[in-house]
Amino acid sequence: MTAPAKRPGRRPGSADTRGEILDAARAEFASRGYEKTTVRGIARAAGVDPALVHHYFGSKEQVFLSALEFPVDPAAVVELASGDPSDVGERLARYVVALWEVPQARERLLAVVRSVASNEEMAALVRGFARPRLVVPLASRIGGPDAEARVEMALAQIIGLAMARYVIGVEPVASLSGEEIVGLLGPALQRLLSP
Amino acid sequence: MTAPAKRPGRRPGSADTRGEILDAARAEFASRGYEKTTVRGIARAAGVDPALVHHYFGSKEQVFLSALEFPVDPAAVVELASGDPSDVGERLARYVVALWEVPQARERLLAVVRSVASNEEMAALVRGFARPRLVVPLASRIGGPDAEARVEMALAQIIGLAMARYVIGVEPVASLSGEEIVGLLGPALQRLLSP
Repeated sequence: MTAPAKRPGRRPGSADTRGEILDAARAEFASRGYEKTTVRGIARAAGVDPALVHHYFGSKEQVFLSALEFPVDPAAVVELASGDPSDVGERLARYVVALWEVPQARERLLAVVRSVASNEEMAALVRGFARPRLVVPLASRIGGPDAEARVEMALAQIIGLAMARYVIGVEPVASLSGEEIVGLLGPALQRLLSP
Repeated sequence: MTAPAKRPGRRPGSADTRGEILDAARAEFASRGYEKTTVRGIARAAGVDPALVHHYFGSKEQVFLSALEFPVDPAAVVELASGDPSDVGERLARYVVALWEVPQARERLLAVVRSVASNEEMAALVRGFARPRLVVPLASRIGGPDAEARVEMALAQIIGLAMARYVIGVEPVASLSGEEIVGLLGPALQRLLSP
């Protein structure tokens, strides 16, 4: 989970400041893309001091993930790819399946998939974020030719399986246990990610 | 392309008969699922003779594909899997990429992906159809343990890659040539489909 809870106790700004920052952030990310959006620009659009954005969210990436209510920390995924390359597929599969098995995280992931599919602005947001924060760092960990394309094939396998299992709900994958999904997905990701 | 053009010349029924049959078919498939829907039931719901449904569409499967405006003939996909098993992945990848490169077919495929993602009724339609007409026959062609689950992993890889390339539009896969996509997708499908 990446969205930090509102801090209890003394809180600068109005009761709605956090929500206003997120609204401004969504508008900024949508119009400028992830790379060109700055914490300062978000603060200006929200009419608050940049320090307040840092206070609530910590970093641009955290503002972005909170604005999308996205339950995955890309840094944790990249960290997974930094260990022993001979079982990176299984580690990644276990991480994904563990996430899917938390109903709240699964619902948020599926909400993102749904809104990307139906909303070009959302697709542009994810496009601008996914490459610098997920694809490029993952590719540099796994190495080899076509590393970025192979990383995207792996992410595509994960997204497609989420659609088959949870959105379409087609058997047998809809009813397989988490361990069985790891047994299918792990080797597939391993082959895609091995140089 | 599976939706036959309206036949020129003498046409039984009113000008809208074909559209009325498709409306009735969507409602029948949605409420009963693919397997339990019959051409007779569709005809009854549309207030026409079953012969007229056969006249316009030929078979229940063709009514279904026309109702979804789905540009893939599952029988052609199953046929692809019936040839030499050592390059089934490449054949399937070439078929998929050729389809994606026809803008009209691509748009219809993406429309189906979008509406499946956002509409449970549409997901139920595809769920009821995909398993008997695509997954089970493909699995019987490729054989081996877990054949149905491996077929679904392959379909998930295709759907996920379509989302990455066309819906999210993330680089590098968004800009790769069709031949480069075949080079990535073919081996991935081959490994998933090899027992």
